[in-house]
Amino acid sequence: MKYIESKKNDEIKQLKKLALTKNIRKTGTYVVEGFHLVREADQYEQEFVKLLVTEKYTEDRLVKKYHDIAVSISEDVAKELSETKTPQGIFAVLKVNNTDKISAINGKWVMLDDVQDPGNVGTIIRTADAAGYDGVITSLDTADFYQPKVQRSMQGSQFHLPIYRMNINDAITLAKESDLTIYGSEVNDQAKPYNELAKKDKFALIMGNEAHGVSQDVLNQADENIYIPILGQAESLNVAVAAGVLMYGLQTL
Amino acid sequence: MKYIESKKNDEIKQLKKLALTKNIRKTGTYVVEGFHLVREADQYEQEFVKLLVTEKYTEDRLVKKYHDIAVSISEDVAKELSETKTPQGIFAVLKVNNTDKISAINGKWVMLDDVQDPGNVGTIIRTADAAGYDGVITSLDTADFYQPKVQRSMQGSQFHLPIYRMNINDAITLAKESDLTIYGSEVNDQAKPYNELAKKDKFALIMGNEAHGVSQDVLNQADENIYIPILGQAESLNVAVAAGVLMYGLQTL
Repeated sequence: MKYIESKKNDEIKQLKKLALTKNIRKTGTYVVEGFHLVREADQYEQEFVKLLVTEKYTEDRLVKKYHDIAVSISEDVAKELSETKTPQGIFAVLKVNNTDKISAINGKWVMLDDVQDPGNVGTIIRTADAAGYDGVITSLDTADFYQPKVQRSMQGSQFHLPIYRMNINDAITLAKESDLTIYGSEVNDQAKPYNELAKKDKFALIMGNEAHGVSQDVLNQADENIYIPILGQAESLNVAVAAGVLMYGLQTL
Repeated sequence: MKYIESKKNDEIKQLKKLALTKNIRKTGTYVVEGFHLVREADQYEQEFVKLLVTEKYTEDRLVKKYHDIAVSISEDVAKELSETKTPQGIFAVLKVNNTDKISAINGKWVMLDDVQDPGNVGTIIRTADAAGYDGVITSLDTADFYQPKVQRSMQGSQFHLPIYRMNINDAITLAKESDLTIYGSEVNDQAKPYNELAKKDKFALIMGNEAHGVSQDVLNQADENIYIPILGQAESLNVAVAAGVLMYGLQTL
């Protein structure tokens, strides 16, 4: 097994660049970190490009399975690649799933209209997974779900449900073609309280940007705009919390 | 008005130390940042110890009101004090409210059993504020709500509802003395689904540590342990999202 000791190694420098969307999209590869995620990537039959491990993992069953593409790295290199302060010392480079094209959607979907914070994007996708939604569509200006910071808060949900990235108007068209009800969400007590909606089996719930909410153009295309009643004195909710309240709220009507 | 230009000034060094709980508790003071929070602190009649502003705020009405304790600072000092990349340039040093002692609680409360992440703690308090809860109690090992990172995600909710910090067992005793139903939350499908509970007007909802959940000792003292059904393949929810789902879920039963 090849060994890389220096964090200045060219291969490591290239991998560091996969923190940026443009490099993820250019190379068609992204990095997952930690034993749990790497094992899930294997279980869910993702395409492995490379596996990088520190000494304590070199005898692991997983590493033996991928020995042709496995690379041994120093603790120093692990620290350089890691998003955490105390890296576990296992990283996989995976092929991006070719999920930018889709011809139809059905059931319950969440759509993100320019959500900026990677932690929020990952947390919303993880919640959609927990709440039994059928998939997530992110707009082109939403934080890319292959970014390391999104991966970290998503905790492997990309292996459990389909996630697409496309123009938000195309996503709405797709939903309307399958007769999904479009729910825009807003911080506006003129909208409809979510807990007064009729239960539906087919809908798309659209969550918006942290500062500006769902864009007016998108709200105009919605069948119903909904809100979470503010019962105290806070001005608004964190978007990932609001998404959780609405996703479970619509499931338990 | 006094002017501080260098970030190496002793007064600025002392203020930087207020990022740490031990120094907040020792001095009985903490820092809020940004015009919105400083204005809210004034509106909610908090005790100001100092107000630090860059040039653009020196003629502001608020600064004139506090001119006796106002200090002009350079952009360099503002950057040093700030939690953000682009500081607004206004900071207030406030007295910690003497809220460690309380003789009775009533209504709907949230209790945090060793929640570690400052962002989660702030977000949960903000959500409790939005969802119309009567107050929040944090255990002694929960991230201190006067920390700058908690302040940032809490967005001023400390001015809207009471927040106490005490031993979690004392908090449970206090709740039981006022006949509040104690709900422990867990990731365990043997517990009761939250949406099947009877509606109550008086309860304490306990949320737990990110890694270990609510401690077993605390769960043993609960009247009912509840969970959020996982309908998909995620293993768990982010604790701030789970708190939001439960807080609103219990309000809309």
